[in-house]
Amino acid sequence: MKVNKIEHIGIAVKNLDTAIPYYEKVLGLECYRIEEVEEQKVKTAFFKVGEVKIELLESTDPEGPIGKFVEKKGEGMHHIAFAVDNIEDQLVDAEEKGVRLIDKTPRGGAEGLDIAFLHPKSTFGVLTELCEDKNK
Amino acid sequence: MKVNKIEHIGIAVKNLDTAIPYYEKVLGLECYRIEEVEEQKVKTAFFKVGEVKIELLESTDPEGPIGKFVEKKGEGMHHIAFAVDNIEDQLVDAEEKGVRLIDKTPRGGAEGLDIAFLHPKSTFGVLTELCEDKNK
Repeated sequence: MKVNKIEHIGIAVKNLDTAIPYYEKVLGLECYRIEEVEEQKVKTAFFKVGEVKIELLESTDPEGPIGKFVEKKGEGMHHIAFAVDNIEDQLVDAEEKGVRLIDKTPRGGAEGLDIAFLHPKSTFGVLTELCEDKNK
Repeated sequence: MKVNKIEHIGIAVKNLDTAIPYYEKVLGLECYRIEEVEEQKVKTAFFKVGEVKIELLESTDPEGPIGKFVEKKGEGMHHIAFAVDNIEDQLVDAEEKGVRLIDKTPRGGAEGLDIAFLHPKSTFGVLTELCEDKNK
């Protein structure tokens, strides 16, 4: 596999309205986009810091993946996303190297990216997303 | 506060010898440094991905902070570190804005950086490190 950079860090929060002011007023970052991803049952808020984005995730459904995560583990870092080219090829490569895939083929994510997750059991506990911007 | 970029992502693992091959052979990153930080009771391995580093942390003592983290939560993302200038001023600013500090004054970390941690109870569950390279 070849990863180009960290595209974003996903952070689960209980409530965007209370978390965004911390990122803006304490860390001095600017929220440039809020987007609901219905399929994932989340509302997301994005910040840029250098070449990386921070994606805050608030669950819109207690039974969704972020709702369950917060219920079990509390707020905190949820996943790391790497920007790649040719995401389909990278998934084939990862699987050939023994990585268990959550998504065998990419699907649509926030900000119009094609995304796919690797299972944390194969990645030493880190829920890992690959993403490619096919619009650029 | 003003953060310049994400300096690194800290990831707790049980064993560097088994985790490093995943980062190298699957993700295609290169481990450029291994360092023991005795004060923190960890052995660390560093990788660069774009402008950010990934810091793997293996505990050298079950009673150390990473040993306890892995015991309680398992392997996974442990902290996020932001590069700042004038770290002392940033800590004053953070405290004035109501953030609970783990370190009121900076101390020495891996790679010769001055580091200080903010308490996750004040940062929506994310153990947050500030770091400054005063040697540059």
